[in-house]
Amino acid sequence: MSRIDGRENDELRETKIIKDFIKNASGSVLIETGETRVICTASVEEKVPSFLRGTGQGWITAEYGMLPASTQNRKIRESHRGKVEGRTQEIQRLIGRTLRSVVDLKKLGERTIWIDCDVIQADGGTRTASITGAFIALVQALQKLVQEEKMQEIPIKNYVAAVSVGMVNEEHLLDLCYQEDSHAKIDMNIVMTDAGDYVEIQGTGEDSPFSKKDLFKLLELGEKGIQKLILQQKEILGEIFM
Amino acid sequence: MSRIDGRENDELRETKIIKDFIKNASGSVLIETGETRVICTASVEEKVPSFLRGTGQGWITAEYGMLPASTQNRKIRESHRGKVEGRTQEIQRLIGRTLRSVVDLKKLGERTIWIDCDVIQADGGTRTASITGAFIALVQALQKLVQEEKMQEIPIKNYVAAVSVGMVNEEHLLDLCYQEDSHAKIDMNIVMTDAGDYVEIQGTGEDSPFSKKDLFKLLELGEKGIQKLILQQKEILGEIFM
Amino acid sequence: MSRIDGRENDELRETKIIKDFIKNASGSVLIETGETRVICTASVEEKVPSFLRGTGQGWITAEYGMLPASTQNRKIRESHRGKVEGRTQEIQRLIGRTLRSVVDLKKLGERTIWIDCDVIQADGGTRTASITGAFIALVQALQKLVQEEKMQEIPIKNYVAAVSVGMVNEEHLLDLCYQEDSHAKIDMNIVMTDAGDYVEIQGTGEDSPFSKKDLFKLLELGEKGIQKLILQQKEILGEIFM
Amino acid sequence: MSRIDGRENDELRETKIIKDFIKNASGSVLIETGETRVICTASVEEKVPSFLRGTGQGWITAEYGMLPASTQNRKIRESHRGKVEGRTQEIQRLIGRTLRSVVDLKKLGERTIWIDCDVIQADGGTRTASITGAFIALVQALQKLVQEEKMQEIPIKNYVAAVSVGMVNEEHLLDLCYQEDSHAKIDMNIVMTDAGDYVEIQGTGEDSPFSKKDLFKLLELGEKGIQKLILQQKEILGEIFM
Amino acid sequence: MSRIDGRENDELRETKIIKDFIKNASGSVLIETGETRVICTASVEEKVPSFLRGTGQGWITAEYGMLPASTQNRKIRESHRGKVEGRTQEIQRLIGRTLRSVVDLKKLGERTIWIDCDVIQADGGTRTASITGAFIALVQALQKLVQEEKMQEIPIKNYVAAVSVGMVNEEHLLDLCYQEDSHAKIDMNIVMTDAGDYVEIQGTGEDSPFSKKDLFKLLELGEKGIQKLILQQKEILGEIFM
Amino acid sequence: MSRIDGRENDELRETKIIKDFIKNASGSVLIETGETRVICTASVEEKVPSFLRGTGQGWITAEYGMLPASTQNRKIRESHRGKVEGRTQEIQRLIGRTLRSVVDLKKLGERTIWIDCDVIQADGGTRTASITGAFIALVQALQKLVQEEKMQEIPIKNYVAAVSVGMVNEEHLLDLCYQEDSHAKIDMNIVMTDAGDYVEIQGTGEDSPFSKKDLFKLLELGEKGIQKLILQQKEILGEIFM
Repeated sequence: MSRIDGRENDELRETKIIKDFIKNASGSVLIETGETRVICTASVEEKVPSFLRGTGQGWITAEYGMLPASTQNRKIRESHRGKVEGRTQEIQRLIGRTLRSVVDLKKLGERTIWIDCDVIQADGGTRTASITGAFIALVQALQKLVQEEKMQEIPIKNYVAAVSVGMVNEEHLLDLCYQEDSHAKIDMNIVMTDAGDYVEIQGTGEDSPFSKKDLFKLLELGEKGIQKLILQQKEILGEIFM
Repeated sequence: MSRIDGRENDELRETKIIKDFIKNASGSVLIETGETRVICTASVEEKVPSFLRGTGQGWITAEYGMLPASTQNRKIRESHRGKVEGRTQEIQRLIGRTLRSVVDLKKLGERTIWIDCDVIQADGGTRTASITGAFIALVQALQKLVQEEKMQEIPIKNYVAAVSVGMVNEEHLLDLCYQEDSHAKIDMNIVMTDAGDYVEIQGTGEDSPFSKKDLFKLLELGEKGIQKLILQQKEILGEIFM
Repeated sequence: MSRIDGRENDELRETKIIKDFIKNASGSVLIETGETRVICTASVEEKVPSFLRGTGQGWITAEYGMLPASTQNRKIRESHRGKVEGRTQEIQRLIGRTLRSVVDLKKLGERTIWIDCDVIQADGGTRTASITGAFIALVQALQKLVQEEKMQEIPIKNYVAAVSVGMVNEEHLLDLCYQEDSHAKIDMNIVMTDAGDYVEIQGTGEDSPFSKKDLFKLLELGEKGIQKLILQQKEILGEIFM
Repeated sequence: MSRIDGRENDELRETKIIKDFIKNASGSVLIETGETRVICTASVEEKVPSFLRGTGQGWITAEYGMLPASTQNRKIRESHRGKVEGRTQEIQRLIGRTLRSVVDLKKLGERTIWIDCDVIQADGGTRTASITGAFIALVQALQKLVQEEKMQEIPIKNYVAAVSVGMVNEEHLLDLCYQEDSHAKIDMNIVMTDAGDYVEIQGTGEDSPFSKKDLFKLLELGEKGIQKLILQQKEILGEIFM
Repeated sequence: MSRIDGRENDELRETKIIKDFIKNASGSVLIETGETRVICTASVEEKVPSFLRGTGQGWITAEYGMLPASTQNRKIRESHRGKVEGRTQEIQRLIGRTLRSVVDLKKLGERTIWIDCDVIQADGGTRTASITGAFIALVQALQKLVQEEKMQEIPIKNYVAAVSVGMVNEEHLLDLCYQEDSHAKIDMNIVMTDAGDYVEIQGTGEDSPFSKKDLFKLLELGEKGIQKLILQQKEILGEIFM
Repeated sequence: MSRIDGRENDELRETKIIKDFIKNASGSVLIETGETRVICTASVEEKVPSFLRGTGQGWITAEYGMLPASTQNRKIRESHRGKVEGRTQEIQRLIGRTLRSVVDLKKLGERTIWIDCDVIQADGGTRTASITGAFIALVQALQKLVQEEKMQEIPIKNYVAAVSVGMVNEEHLLDLCYQEDSHAKIDMNIVMTDAGDYVEIQGTGEDSPFSKKDLFKLLELGEKGIQKLILQQKEILGEIFM
């Protein structure tokens, strides 16, 4: 049985990445995964949070937002609610942790990279698209710092990308769109490096718990998808390691 | 003396308008005026604020935001500050008033059109570009309501667009970019209909007061610019009046 | 046809200004314009906002509030809502810009003048009465600084006052009271110096756009009213320029 | 040894009460006690908080505020801090409790009286002046309801007024001004009816605990002051009991 | 007529105090008064609020909270409401003032003691139990500072404890439980030292004012209860004065 | 090499569970895992959030908090910060999802169970202890509903418990205490049912990505720990399935 949009179970949606989408940012992309579209930017600030001052170490922090019209029913602006939702906080903490895991923060030096992921159109998988796109914006910002001779080499240890997997109607699916996601009994987000190591695994079976067999099948699917996305990152970024 | 970007004093920046930029909204455009880029959307909600309930009359309300990386120095997210700035509130009130002035709210019926203007790249004139773009998104949303037979005709009374004018180094300039704007001694935003009537005039001489002569010269420049922008709206929207 | 309170179209309401209304402030007035009554105070703080520190330049900032019982229906306290309304922010930004436009901030030196305009009774024109009254409180505070030998001369470049004008039932009216204001199809606030230069023009035609002819007629009416108010300021303040 | 302003230890400051100070409120006074000046208003709303709906019983609630320039050093607006201070909450809860204690809430009917006490000039004793003044505004609002035939008689059981007492330099003082208050080792606020019964006693010895003897002496002083204030209330209000 | 739980009118509920209840705090107790249970802790911070910096003087500040399930109907978390209630602020200000009144803040040195009183089960008298318990946690924290040779002696001037008294059905009662409290026509909290001096008296007659005779009877009852509680504090703490 | 507290790598800390710890809650426990201590309560409310009204289905929601003195350095109260931290939101969302996954919400009927987990002492593993304890409080509350004949049977599908696992100094460890956790290069929380199915897996390698081999080893350790905890739940709860 094929999927709602005709894909195979282990098939990614088409992903397009437009570089240099926002001129004021050090790095920026528009990443489009099917109908999901996210603007990812990286901005450099020459100072660090107080807990790192004087340590010589840098920091990477991420923020995530959704434009009101990005969702099927208009979403109330968080600035108007006066608070940041739990879901938003989870996602931005995840993006930040992920990017820090592949950067040598000592080599980054005492500066902060601000990552902003703003969803302009949402159709499932916004947090994983954010990670995959933000990595590219981050590398661009680091390349610029090297060009400006503020650091000698790009302090990146690995490529990293993310994808969602899940189980819908007893099928194990890769890269769920919104309609699939809303019927999934298992929902898992996987973040992985080009070396095949995990940075983060978040699997939830809200409607019903899931078996080890399902877990292993989904991990396998996720790995397959992520490695394809990393190939795409490599095409865009070229050789980034010294 | 020509301007920073080579324009004549009475010359608009090039304006591009991409329709249907966000699929989940009823109406949407990406408007680009020089380096200023704003996503404008219109979303329909089938209810009205409490002060209009039972009156048979509709409402149009607008919100405005800037992505953190849209400005030269990354701007703190208003959702993270926990409050909406005064400047933001001024702008969104202006957009809302403007659009309501050209719509027959009785004919709109008891529904609300939510206008969202989100700046993804800022180079001066974001509020006027928002108005010019939001008008198109609004009309699209109304056209859709007519197609869905929720109303009989588009309840629009006039086209409306906006432009900034100002005085820099004793020159009267049309459509200021950011660098001009930051050196202007008079800063004025004009909102006008295709009939040549004013919807809003906001002129400020913070550094020093300005004379009547300057006022009249700037009003003239603004009118010229707005009528050109309305021609562009007409090309995109086609004939909208019954 | 005469107006609701028997005035001519080009007639101001009676304006009374009581000096030294609040003893703890450096400058203070109670300004009464018809039934509108506003307490305006000026307080001096010997430091400046961070963006001015070390520049030798001073700052003037304004806040505006309404007592709950000042309006016909009791108004919820902004401190209890937990946020400052958009309208309030617009007004306080307008008052601040206006006063800064007629002060030589360099000569003020690194200090801040806090202007507070608190409406105790509202009957239309509270923002313009605030400006007219706040100018007097400001000058008083500056005179005190001269007396205390903290500056050599009052760094004021011009008198400044404000008035509202509008169009009700096809009549062009000066200084609208609340009932007129709530039926106005054009509502304009004008801020002008004794030299006849504009500091700010804010004209809105929410219900329907307005013609150039109306604009010019209203500008003329406003100028007439403002020059009378400035005469009243001069009587109270005496000679303020060296 | 006489006091800072020449008063005897058991002497009240001069108290002036101006009725009908704010025209939009049902009841209003400006109460001046020495240099302390408070605007007290009573506004009627024809509904009750949810916990009283359907009970036939009314409610009285109070809010308290200070204008920024009312204090010696300009006080930050609570609306700008985004929260109501603990001190403010204590005072407004005290005013509300006090007034409810002398009103027959059943006879008031399902309506709320909003009391607003706004200090325009502070020199000690603002909370007690607020109570003494608010009682008059409340009675005025109730008288108006009787005139409008919304109730048959004024549902007041007793007059009520308040005063501060304290101990400064081993002297027991009545009605402390700000300078006395800031040196007091005991600070007590007493609220009492015309029948000589207590509504509230709040005594604090922050710097050092105080003896029973001091307590009794202060209670006596307070009673003396309050009975004088109630005479003044009676002169202004005339006969209020049926 | 005996009380709801069989006590005499002048009888305290059984009070148990468990020391060292929380290992991370410098001082901590679980105090149980009947069914009321409060965790009181004292934490030392080696700095003072800005208004004390450089004065050589220390500070004591208190915070109070209730777990959601501590009350009969689950109470909404204040962190989720986004603000601290007036009642909470009153209580924590009372606890702080009380403890500061028996400590020599000069001898404390430039450090802050944070007192936290968290109610895990509420059955009336939570604020007075908090005071009685917090005093013990405070002394423990001070004893630890002496042991660590950060100060030479415990800077305590007096023991202090608190109790509630009130009038229910014309009876004068000591130490009200929740059900008594909710029917009380007079509600009074008394804070007193071992020397028999008052630190704080807060008496309220919301439903109806109360006579001097009732006041004196209740003060007598309160004193009796507090002196018993102080005996219990002494048993737990041993000799604390040098 | 043995662990900091002498445990084997695959050894749980001693866990004690005290039932009926808070009398006002329908269900409550104090769960102690080593030095980590959490009060878990379940409160029943006979209504559901708006999105479930009329569906016949119930809801379970969780809140999590830490007392200020629960941590080594006193933690600022979230109610005083005015917002709920991202970490708190993540944890309470996790607890809620977990409990909902083992309850038949249809059979629960239109009521909400509020779960509160309040950490009174923290030494690592507070979120997993919260889950293990909250499950017991939840079952108690459901048992009470059955006793009150509000439902026929306990709508629980599975036991559920949680534990943390991680990697410290190349060792795979079960149930990390705070000191271990702060040096862990992999940190994973596992939630599992008595049937051996996963409800949630959250694994993070912030410092460095981790291999599949590590993942599998940690999953195995976690399962072992959780099944022991479920045995302890069964001892306390007895037979809960019909």
